[in-house]
Amino acid sequence: MKIRTGFGYDVHQLVEGLDFWLGGIKVPHTHGALGHSDADVLLHVICDALLGAANLRDIGFHFPDTDPKYKGVDSKILLKEVMRLLTEKGYQISNIDSTICLQEPKINPHIPAMKTCIAEVMGIPEEDISIKATTTEKLGFVGKKEGVAAYASVLIYK
Amino acid sequence: MKIRTGFGYDVHQLVEGLDFWLGGIKVPHTHGALGHSDADVLLHVICDALLGAANLRDIGFHFPDTDPKYKGVDSKILLKEVMRLLTEKGYQISNIDSTICLQEPKINPHIPAMKTCIAEVMGIPEEDISIKATTTEKLGFVGKKEGVAAYASVLIYK
Amino acid sequence: MKIRTGFGYDVHQLVEGLDFWLGGIKVPHTHGALGHSDADVLLHVICDALLGAANLRDIGFHFPDTDPKYKGVDSKILLKEVMRLLTEKGYQISNIDSTICLQEPKINPHIPAMKTCIAEVMGIPEEDISIKATTTEKLGFVGKKEGVAAYASVLIYK
Repeated sequence: MKIRTGFGYDVHQLVEGLDFWLGGIKVPHTHGALGHSDADVLLHVICDALLGAANLRDIGFHFPDTDPKYKGVDSKILLKEVMRLLTEKGYQISNIDSTICLQEPKINPHIPAMKTCIAEVMGIPEEDISIKATTTEKLGFVGKKEGVAAYASVLIYK
Repeated sequence: MKIRTGFGYDVHQLVEGLDFWLGGIKVPHTHGALGHSDADVLLHVICDALLGAANLRDIGFHFPDTDPKYKGVDSKILLKEVMRLLTEKGYQISNIDSTICLQEPKINPHIPAMKTCIAEVMGIPEEDISIKATTTEKLGFVGKKEGVAAYASVLIYK
Repeated sequence: MKIRTGFGYDVHQLVEGLDFWLGGIKVPHTHGALGHSDADVLLHVICDALLGAANLRDIGFHFPDTDPKYKGVDSKILLKEVMRLLTEKGYQISNIDSTICLQEPKINPHIPAMKTCIAEVMGIPEEDISIKATTTEKLGFVGKKEGVAAYASVLIYK
């Protein structure tokens, strides 16, 4: 059995009045993430970690933010396509652990819904998808509410 | 054998005159980390990485910073409880690799004592606990000495 | 089989007029990374992740930035030495996934050359080295073009 690690990191600006897509769901908040797609930073880092683990370049390579095709695109479509690429290469997911860095709002109440959504999109058990949340204690661009960041760590195998 | 990855990231502000708990020991310094507990950022990221690997939510979920029970608590108690949760779920630790991001003081001389302390709390060999240190070259809130950050990556299996 | 995880994070300032070494190659740009060595942040995080996985301390421990021997040193020499240390301890590389955080220039066109270079230095297949790139959307020291950061996640085994 060949086991491989993957890691993703991504950032989006927070802007007043935008929808805030995170983990595949819309989080009620005054601000939302800015991006070419729906700017779902959690789905983006999961995509990037999976692509990295399989050595399939990165999310910007597959879905360039200069391509009008991906303007406002639902990131669940991107995640589904990434899963297709991994499956094509013969890989299966062992597990995903992710962290959302956000000063506000509190994300913990939304995590079960995000897990259910991501499990369905990826076709894997919820037990294999972990989502954690942390503030950055008012420090840096996350702490100053200028942006949202996320990390994902994955194991895949064939 | 089922192998799982876990990843933790955390930040605390540095404030003059506080005790500086890091890796289970008190590091001599003019500033210490601010938090509801003893604010030991290294033990917190290890807890978070372990919880994430086992899909057991995160440190804020288990030990909320709004709960007076955890006011000033020794993070070694939290780490012990996290180990109990993992053991209960049948998991064992393969290894932990962690990184402390801090502009000053130099952490390298304290790393052996931290490893000994964490190994004892977790009941695992020192060989399976790595602690690294880096500055951020005077950039960002770590570089400006406003805070301390840490990362942990873990593998667990059952 | 014993499998171990390793994780590296590093930062360097960007300064006008310096050569910009990244992933073992010289990237054409107006600014380059500042450091005691050639300041190749990607090679440094790969070194650190490998050392962490093998519990062999960190890059600052082996190659102190106060040692004149490492002034301006080619980081490929450091990476080769790290590989020697791991091999000596009986470890082999499963795979490496890395992320460069840089606002500009675009790194994607240079990634194939970096992979070829790193594979040759480490003596492992290119298939086992992934390099990804992201901006931080103009936020933080990376977004403000003050610095370059990188992450690496590795799996090793014996």
